[in-house]
Amino acid sequence: MTKLVYMFDESKSGMKETLGGKGANLAEMTRIGLPVPEGFTISTQACNTYYDHDQQITGDLKEQVIDSLHKLEQKTGKKLGDPSDPLLVSVRSGAVFSMPGMMDTVLNLGMNEKTVEAVAELTQNPRFAYDSYRRFIQMFSDVVLKVDSYFFEQHLEETREKKGYAADPELTAEDWKEVITGYKKIVRDHTKRTFPEDPQEQLFLAIQAVFDSWNNQRAIIYRRLNNIPGHLGTAVNIQSMVFGNMGDDSGTGVAFTRNPSTGEAVLYGEYLINAQGEDVVAGIRTPQPIHTLKTEMPEVYQQFVETCNRLESHYGDMQDIEFTVERGKLFILQTRNGKRTAQAAIRIAVEMVKEGVIDRRQALLRVDPDQLNQLLHQRIDDSYELKPLAKGLPASPGAATGHVVFDSDDAELLSQSGKKVILVRPETTPDDIHGIVASEAIVTSRGGMTSHAAVVARGMGKACICGCESLKIDLKKKEFRVGETVVNYLDTVTIDGATGELMLGDIPMIPPELSPEFEMLLSWADKERSLGVRTNADTPEDAYKAREFGAEGIGLCRTEHMFMDAKRIPIVRDMILAGTVDERMAALEKLLPMQQGDFTQIFEAMNGHPVTVRLLDPPLHEFLPDKEELLVEVTKLQLTDPESPELKEKEQLLKKVRQLDEFNPMLGHRGCRLGMVYPEIYMMQAKAIFYAASSLIEKNIEVKPEVMIPLVGHVNELKAMRQVVVEAAELVAEESGKTVDYTVGTMIEIPRAALTADKIAIEADFFSFGTNDLTQTTFGFSRDDAETKFLQHYIEENTLPDNPFMVLDQEGVGKLVETGVQLGRQTKPSLKTGICGEHGGEKSSIEFCFKKGLDYVSCSPYRVPLARLAAAQATVRHKETLSS
Amino acid sequence: MTKLVYMFDESKSGMKETLGGKGANLAEMTRIGLPVPEGFTISTQACNTYYDHDQQITGDLKEQVIDSLHKLEQKTGKKLGDPSDPLLVSVRSGAVFSMPGMMDTVLNLGMNEKTVEAVAELTQNPRFAYDSYRRFIQMFSDVVLKVDSYFFEQHLEETREKKGYAADPELTAEDWKEVITGYKKIVRDHTKRTFPEDPQEQLFLAIQAVFDSWNNQRAIIYRRLNNIPGHLGTAVNIQSMVFGNMGDDSGTGVAFTRNPSTGEAVLYGEYLINAQGEDVVAGIRTPQPIHTLKTEMPEVYQQFVETCNRLESHYGDMQDIEFTVERGKLFILQTRNGKRTAQAAIRIAVEMVKEGVIDRRQALLRVDPDQLNQLLHQRIDDSYELKPLAKGLPASPGAATGHVVFDSDDAELLSQSGKKVILVRPETTPDDIHGIVASEAIVTSRGGMTSHAAVVARGMGKACICGCESLKIDLKKKEFRVGETVVNYLDTVTIDGATGELMLGDIPMIPPELSPEFEMLLSWADKERSLGVRTNADTPEDAYKAREFGAEGIGLCRTEHMFMDAKRIPIVRDMILAGTVDERMAALEKLLPMQQGDFTQIFEAMNGHPVTVRLLDPPLHEFLPDKEELLVEVTKLQLTDPESPELKEKEQLLKKVRQLDEFNPMLGHRGCRLGMVYPEIYMMQAKAIFYAASSLIEKNIEVKPEVMIPLVGHVNELKAMRQVVVEAAELVAEESGKTVDYTVGTMIEIPRAALTADKIAIEADFFSFGTNDLTQTTFGFSRDDAETKFLQHYIEENTLPDNPFMVLDQEGVGKLVETGVQLGRQTKPSLKTGICGEHGGEKSSIEFCFKKGLDYVSCSPYRVPLARLAAAQATVRHKETLSS
Repeated sequence: MTKLVYMFDESKSGMKETLGGKGANLAEMTRIGLPVPEGFTISTQACNTYYDHDQQITGDLKEQVIDSLHKLEQKTGKKLGDPSDPLLVSVRSGAVFSMPGMMDTVLNLGMNEKTVEAVAELTQNPRFAYDSYRRFIQMFSDVVLKVDSYFFEQHLEETREKKGYAADPELTAEDWKEVITGYKKIVRDHTKRTFPEDPQEQLFLAIQAVFDSWNNQRAIIYRRLNNIPGHLGTAVNIQSMVFGNMGDDSGTGVAFTRNPSTGEAVLYGEYLINAQGEDVVAGIRTPQPIHTLKTEMPEVYQQFVETCNRLESHYGDMQDIEFTVERGKLFILQTRNGKRTAQAAIRIAVEMVKEGVIDRRQALLRVDPDQLNQLLHQRIDDSYELKPLAKGLPASPGAATGHVVFDSDDAELLSQSGKKVILVRPETTPDDIHGIVASEAIVTSRGGMTSHAAVVARGMGKACICGCESLKIDLKKKEFRVGETVVNYLDTVTIDGATGELMLGDIPMIPPELSPEFEMLLSWADKERSLGVRTNADTPEDAYKAREFGAEGIGLCRTEHMFMDAKRIPIVRDMILAGTVDERMAALEKLLPMQQGDFTQIFEAMNGHPVTVRLLDPPLHEFLPDKEELLVEVTKLQLTDPESPELKEKEQLLKKVRQLDEFNPMLGHRGCRLGMVYPEIYMMQAKAIFYAASSLIEKNIEVKPEVMIPLVGHVNELKAMRQVVVEAAELVAEESGKTVDYTVGTMIEIPRAALTADKIAIEADFFSFGTNDLTQTTFGFSRDDAETKFLQHYIEENTLPDNPFMVLDQEGVGKLVETGVQLGRQTKPSLKTGICGEHGGEKSSIEFCFKKGLDYVSCSPYRVPLARLAAAQATVRHKETLSS
Repeated sequence: MTKLVYMFDESKSGMKETLGGKGANLAEMTRIGLPVPEGFTISTQACNTYYDHDQQITGDLKEQVIDSLHKLEQKTGKKLGDPSDPLLVSVRSGAVFSMPGMMDTVLNLGMNEKTVEAVAELTQNPRFAYDSYRRFIQMFSDVVLKVDSYFFEQHLEETREKKGYAADPELTAEDWKEVITGYKKIVRDHTKRTFPEDPQEQLFLAIQAVFDSWNNQRAIIYRRLNNIPGHLGTAVNIQSMVFGNMGDDSGTGVAFTRNPSTGEAVLYGEYLINAQGEDVVAGIRTPQPIHTLKTEMPEVYQQFVETCNRLESHYGDMQDIEFTVERGKLFILQTRNGKRTAQAAIRIAVEMVKEGVIDRRQALLRVDPDQLNQLLHQRIDDSYELKPLAKGLPASPGAATGHVVFDSDDAELLSQSGKKVILVRPETTPDDIHGIVASEAIVTSRGGMTSHAAVVARGMGKACICGCESLKIDLKKKEFRVGETVVNYLDTVTIDGATGELMLGDIPMIPPELSPEFEMLLSWADKERSLGVRTNADTPEDAYKAREFGAEGIGLCRTEHMFMDAKRIPIVRDMILAGTVDERMAALEKLLPMQQGDFTQIFEAMNGHPVTVRLLDPPLHEFLPDKEELLVEVTKLQLTDPESPELKEKEQLLKKVRQLDEFNPMLGHRGCRLGMVYPEIYMMQAKAIFYAASSLIEKNIEVKPEVMIPLVGHVNELKAMRQVVVEAAELVAEESGKTVDYTVGTMIEIPRAALTADKIAIEADFFSFGTNDLTQTTFGFSRDDAETKFLQHYIEENTLPDNPFMVLDQEGVGKLVETGVQLGRQTKPSLKTGICGEHGGEKSSIEFCFKKGLDYVSCSPYRVPLARLAAAQATVRHKETLSS
């Protein structure tokens, strides 16, 4: 006979798949000797068997449940249905992967007309007994008998009104008895049967209901959204009830073993004397801070503190604990790793290492790299005295200033025109996503910390205040009022998502910096990781910032941004519109010292760290005036001033713009294709690099330029362009007498480059995977078009799991990266490889790069800390896999 | 000592790499006992050694040459430099791969002041002896001493003038002596040395000159263009001279063993009595047809005929033979496979099978598939004498007559009214597609063989001339000029796309047809090949034509062409501009019966053969008016008539056009991405397919529709779109009561599809590789942009070996095709695979498809015979490889 039911003290560790998360947890706490209410778990396998048998509980299972029930009765000394000392139990679901609130629970099972009286007698609290009974009836009817709670609420309200009560606590035991009679009638009316009196019948009906809830609509949707397989099934936990409301020697509470907001190592939580868990939530009585328990119940407090320490060191992490005290006896109902802010996560991890609870590697795994964004947002200057206009819930940290808008379409429109906006709404819905994306921050007057706005904002790392109820929003007038103050459409406000405060006007901000604990954690990360972290930087400012955040070089320095400078664009245009090579050379001569200046500053900022400079990449028409605007101007002039010399000139320009115009610029005359047709452009850039480098060598500053040829698809392109670079280097070396130590490599950003990497590696010292463009060509997606036209639809419909421009598509694009590395190294084992697409700052993509043996990732300066941590985590996880 | 020199009778077969092509050929002819003038070959290895030793002839080589020379003297009974019976030799290059005319040759080597007299004596022809001597001096000086021929020609002309002669034959022996004295002075003046008298010195200088010529400019360029490696080196052939000008018992000629124009099995050639090879070329005397040799020299003729038969059966192919008769003795100087027209190639191949010379498989290899084009276009009647007005690049073969138009709209309009037109444009763009479709042929004054016009025309099998620069086109006046001649709108012209010639007026044509021999050859091909051949056809006409040429189904039926029809485009626009799903459905309802009609006709034409219908692929904006034109119209109206309702309407339209506008339409909202967002469009198309199919089943006509979803990149796309098709099929089956036997598959045309083919195959019954788009995305090339902006440059500079849109890039794109087939079959061994890009009609790409195990290729109707033959050749070559 297959074992389908396990007592809490019967199972071994590592049985999560059989017992579910909650069951395994209860068993483990029991095993380590914690005061957990006794009980047993019905395995997930039993759930599957149930479904295999047309949703019938088999005789086998029934037998084992009854057997375990007897054991439970022996342990507790109580009996289910015993009219003198009845056992009451909770029946809860418990899947392998947590599915909070998705499945059903029944509490106080075992109550009936007789046992309720025993409870009244034993607790000396008839009111509590009958209230519990009516709660049980309501919950059981809802979950098991499928009678909507609405009818019971309705009946209760009628009773209250009839009696002239304002709230439930005013009802007496007798009143509750009356309510119970009404409840039972409701059940009879709706189910055509009487409410089950037999506790065993209650038990099996409840078990069946929990099994059934595995496949209710919301559970199915939750599993689909979270990729949880449907065949896992749920376990069912049957546990004896304990009561925190058995008098002043009883109570209930919730505590974190450390402060989840700051990470400080103090017990953090609250409790209520003579209460059940629900009462804490209901908010009728204000809970007391946990430390007062020390004076109220010194022994219990002592035991609780010890238990907390034990749990923390057992689980090696900060715990979020639910407890109940029944007649002076402490029971631990649940413990789990506590959720925390980024700041807390870092502090807890670092301090736990100091305390010897965990080692550095474990500490590294304790902080989610995605959370770090929170710490790298600018903050309101501490020295500034704030005068908050309103205060709401601190739903998502960060500070932001912007113009107030009241509508997501406005937000999008204004943000496209370059304005920073803050979206203020009564509440948000999924229809507001585009508005949230477009805004700096979100403020709602309704909803809590788990409202749509809060969840979405936290997900996007945007500041958010929720439930800011003092805001009276008038969507029609486009204004909000706080008391006498009126804030109009487009007025400027500042918000602090970490405090929930909203201020009028613009408030000074300070740039983000790394806390000492954060620095410490990252220094551990640096020791652990093998994957290098560089930055994408086109300016000296970015380069300095990235160095501050720990970047070990520049992985991508785009030179076209230097061409875009307002003072330079006329010269760039002269170069493009040149009729002859000589004219083009003359313009390039003028650009050379400018580019040289740029490179000098960037090389200086990186002070000996490698700098990968990508030669000109975008199609030349990007530097020319907009075709449509020009066309409109020409058309107007043709009608209004057909003889003007301006018209002639614009017509000429339009002609040239048309010549350079392309159907698909992304796949057009750009990248090294420019250098192939106009080698003089690349020659100028290469010379600027070497002039800059040799001038710094002169000053004893080390320089390591890596010249990167973009968009190579065939080795012959790289061969020819490499020749241009080598020529420039030799020329400058001859002129300056300084030899620059440089390398030449290529971006791997079109599929053909990856597919023929063995050939391309012959001419390359390094490969840098340009996964932005590689994603575009591998998917056949133009990012500009896809994201506005259909990609959103694809992600909403789950056609694609993620936006592949944000999370590397390992299945497709990743296969090309892997092929590229493999073939490249086959030809040249010393080939340096990196990634410089946006994916270089995304944690799952970073782990992928580590696994595929890349040398480094490169990302924007503010993502460097994230990348350092994610790279370290990848190494640690890899070592764990090896040693397990 | 390495053997560097081989007598002709000393070497074994299969030594082409050592002896070069010519040397190996001479050795082989010697081996089979043909009368070849004696000689020896210096190996290619010797050439490389020569370059390894700073272009010095090593002592080793010198020794072996002298040794071989002695052997040659023994065999011929003559001695180099012998004043009584001198040996004269030719010194010729001979590379492994033929490089005709690229390297140097010296004839009559061994002549000097003494030996020339011996020749005069022996031939009894002093005039011939001195003429030969002066020719030798001129050639040797040019090739070896680098004295330009110009000076000798100059001197000869002065001598002629002085003597009052009109032509060379008037010069006497004494005159030639005088010329020789002058020649020697020229050599002294230019080289500061006397002309070498010592024949051995002459010999080594000549050998060295031939070695040097391996690296002359034209040889290097030729090798680069033909992908011949530079390290191969050239062999040098030294052969005793024979003279056809030793009297009336001597002569020289050239003959083909069969008629190279028609293929008829008769000896075909000509000869001259008492003449050298040059005289035949010079054209001073008219050669005689070969059959007259029968009466003039019956024995020689008999021996020659026997030799021809022997050569043909030895080489198993029609031979092109050079021969000389010296004093009644026949010498074969050279034999090679003769070049021939397509018509001849086919007839010879088929007849040789009948004769038992070769088997069917060999016959299949004898015809170059590329040549077949000649036979599949109507041609200008050969008997007509042409007077071309202009000549451009022969961009697409075929001949056509029509009225000149200068604009695609005119072309469409006139063609709809039944007129045949020829579109003349400076160049064409994708906007001209409807004009090209409507025209018989296209002529452009700009652009090359890969210009838009050329590519599109070849794709459509239309005649085209490109880059016809002598045409001065005036689009405003609607005329073009060539010199004084003016050709007006609607004038009639005729063009020959195979020659690039344009003629005035109507010229008689011959329609294409498959000759009986051609049919025979293709029937053998069909028996041999395992690769299926389908066609790309969008109209019933194309479908019928393709069936006639042997297509076994339609591999690609594009449905967007049906949307482009002038009568339908307003409805299509209604569908696109629809504000609601209902409006869109209403437009689709109107389109359904039209599409159904199209499919019915095409299915009928294919009569039970499979038809792959691709659902709508291009982005919707392609069906809307041109954005720029609209913008100009709106701008004008804004200035001239700001209140007009027309302006309002156009502004509205412009807004919609802008909404649908894309940065990179090739990578935008097209293909199945349309179907994903607007499933109702695909639903309409699928229903039209099934209604058409079931109506034919009603009439007992077999139909095999294969519904193809374009541009799939992720299996989820195919899964969703397959569902739409299945739904349509079920719906129609229910309505009509007929079940259609259909399959659903996808185009593999973006890299991700190939890379994840194992996943995609789960939902696919077939894969069709769309190598046009796959080439675009794999290379990151937008074809429209690449071909006008840089691809030509890449091909000219040899950056790419071929235009990858014409010849499949096996190294890159091919790797994806291979991966796709392999992964797809891994999931579903029965998966049907084909190719439907332009490459499906290109021979090397077809061979690739065969090798990679595809089931079929699909190409334009006129390419079907080519594909049948190329597929058979691939099989035959594969079997040869297996058995060798």
